[in-house]
Amino acid sequence: MRKFRLLAPGPTEVPPQVLQAMARPVIHHRTPEFEALFEEVRRGLQWLFQTRQDVLILAASGTGAMEGAVVNACSPGDKVLVLKGGKFGERWAEICQAYGLTVIPVEIPYGKVADPAAVGEALRRQPGIAAVFATHSETSTGVLNDIEAIAAVVRKTPALLVVDAVTSLGVVDVPTDDWGVDVMVAASQKAIMLPPGLAFACLSERAWAAAGRARLPRYYFDFLTERKSQAKHQTAWTPAVSLVAGLKVALELMQAEGLEAIFARHERLAAATRAAATALGLTLFAERPTPAVTAVKVPEGLDGGAVVRLLRDKHGISIAGGQGSMRGKIFRIASLGYADAYDVLTGIAALEFTLAELGYPVRLGDGLRAAQDVLQK
Amino acid sequence: MRKFRLLAPGPTEVPPQVLQAMARPVIHHRTPEFEALFEEVRRGLQWLFQTRQDVLILAASGTGAMEGAVVNACSPGDKVLVLKGGKFGERWAEICQAYGLTVIPVEIPYGKVADPAAVGEALRRQPGIAAVFATHSETSTGVLNDIEAIAAVVRKTPALLVVDAVTSLGVVDVPTDDWGVDVMVAASQKAIMLPPGLAFACLSERAWAAAGRARLPRYYFDFLTERKSQAKHQTAWTPAVSLVAGLKVALELMQAEGLEAIFARHERLAAATRAAATALGLTLFAERPTPAVTAVKVPEGLDGGAVVRLLRDKHGISIAGGQGSMRGKIFRIASLGYADAYDVLTGIAALEFTLAELGYPVRLGDGLRAAQDVLQK
Repeated sequence: MRKFRLLAPGPTEVPPQVLQAMARPVIHHRTPEFEALFEEVRRGLQWLFQTRQDVLILAASGTGAMEGAVVNACSPGDKVLVLKGGKFGERWAEICQAYGLTVIPVEIPYGKVADPAAVGEALRRQPGIAAVFATHSETSTGVLNDIEAIAAVVRKTPALLVVDAVTSLGVVDVPTDDWGVDVMVAASQKAIMLPPGLAFACLSERAWAAAGRARLPRYYFDFLTERKSQAKHQTAWTPAVSLVAGLKVALELMQAEGLEAIFARHERLAAATRAAATALGLTLFAERPTPAVTAVKVPEGLDGGAVVRLLRDKHGISIAGGQGSMRGKIFRIASLGYADAYDVLTGIAALEFTLAELGYPVRLGDGLRAAQDVLQK
Repeated sequence: MRKFRLLAPGPTEVPPQVLQAMARPVIHHRTPEFEALFEEVRRGLQWLFQTRQDVLILAASGTGAMEGAVVNACSPGDKVLVLKGGKFGERWAEICQAYGLTVIPVEIPYGKVADPAAVGEALRRQPGIAAVFATHSETSTGVLNDIEAIAAVVRKTPALLVVDAVTSLGVVDVPTDDWGVDVMVAASQKAIMLPPGLAFACLSERAWAAAGRARLPRYYFDFLTERKSQAKHQTAWTPAVSLVAGLKVALELMQAEGLEAIFARHERLAAATRAAATALGLTLFAERPTPAVTAVKVPEGLDGGAVVRLLRDKHGISIAGGQGSMRGKIFRIASLGYADAYDVLTGIAALEFTLAELGYPVRLGDGLRAAQDVLQK
């Protein structure tokens, strides 16, 4: 008998109620039943995004919504500022470059937080920036950027602010309207507790006006077409109806818990994970850690890939290794979405076993007790 | 107690085994478990597409794969030939225009089949066509085009042939390699018996070479990136894992039935539907009907929208009305994917009731007997 557990920063575990909702017979999308469902999830998403704007629902993974943000905000020849502090910041740059935009990078060393003053400085040095692309929770390094402060800086210029909130939405406070973020994108398989396959985008009035002027080519991700359809409780293209049915239940679960409680839970679980890692003599990688995922440096002499493989193959627990240039240098444990204190303790117990099995000097229980001390508070 | 039935040309009913597979706990995509699953569904798709080429699996609806076909096959300034005989042919034109291509249309009156000779004539009149875009089964009109004959004509020129097989794959014979189709696209929610959310694309060697040269901007739908990842049993972006898990079971069901049996079943069910409609004094709309969906003309004096609404609201059966300029003029009954003889008879019985309720002179049972006569053979 083997049990499998997901402690990776997405896909995350999906609650049984949500799995059940997705297993119900498929309904046709051009029916009053679907339209009522769609209207309800759109209201739920507005609550989650803390916005009065429409939240578009796309059949795509998060990268699709990121591409949509680029092609609806920009025009050929535009100069854009991209905050690059990890794989997902780099993805913004790659998408912008694929569409021929001039990318001015703000290079942030991996593990460090974006400096809002540096963003302001870059905007001053490069007048005429059309949009600033940022990552709220940089999943590849475990850093949480200060979007509120970055937004305050960007708001002093005419540039649009586009934010990847894929692993921050439903984890930390993301008051889209209050911060003045122009395009906020997210995806289903993180804190929203769904399988992958849905992506979301929320645009400010300024961003909608920009979309009306934007001249990059687009069709599947044309947000104007999508907005027109979604106002009639339909999508422009056939929606992923089973995921939308699951989304309804997932949003109900989130609303029953409440935003404040959700944020507090994620912070508490991440604090316990960080305390455990520190108690085991490990070093955290992120300067300003996101509660979505805890990035831990692989100690000298240890094979980072082996930690991930052993946890998975022997202990049945999926965490994440380092991506790209971080491969083998960090591992990342998440307690994201449908996760509680016992999931975290399970992950820590397994990590202790794994480190011991790999010959790293660990006293079993040290990490667990440190985590319990945090969790008891 | 109300039962609901889907007799629409997508989404179609999903077998309970497939729904169950999708309701299992989500697995992480960077695991040997997922890679084994992915390898298996890719082999199954090669069987379904009748190809030795890779079949790409995208998290998108069919329109996403259509956009992918355009941006990977073409470059700015390209002249393309688009066969426009319905809403989905027009969608090819819209996507090509969104990307700034020069679209030479081959206009086909709604309900009529594309004439391969006219395609040859258009290619002769317009030298230098980069690609020809065609629709195999035009869902909006119920017409099945003769892709084999069109391919033979296109193959005499250097143009690529790009085919939307969204409602033909798994319904009629689609020998991708034998016909020499360069890009074949399909989606999950038709004969493949899955909810919407996955799209598929299969490229010939010529098309892969063209993708290497193509200079339209692309990122999410960059097939070269996708092919590289999928060769390692991964996707470039987070895959819709629950749908992929369902796809495995759906393909197993299809393989157990066998391609020939699947094609014969669809033809038999559609023939029964056509016979019933004719026996009820109704007129078929399509010159060369697709077995995917039967388009029926709305008789003079009857409200086509009311037929669809009454079937749905009173009888619990979703069929489709006419789209765009066909609205109110036709209705469309499908027996696509997970459908058998009794689903067809149920649909016909309900149609008889509905027509009677709307005051159309119908003798109850005439359609049913005509369908039974076909089904008994």
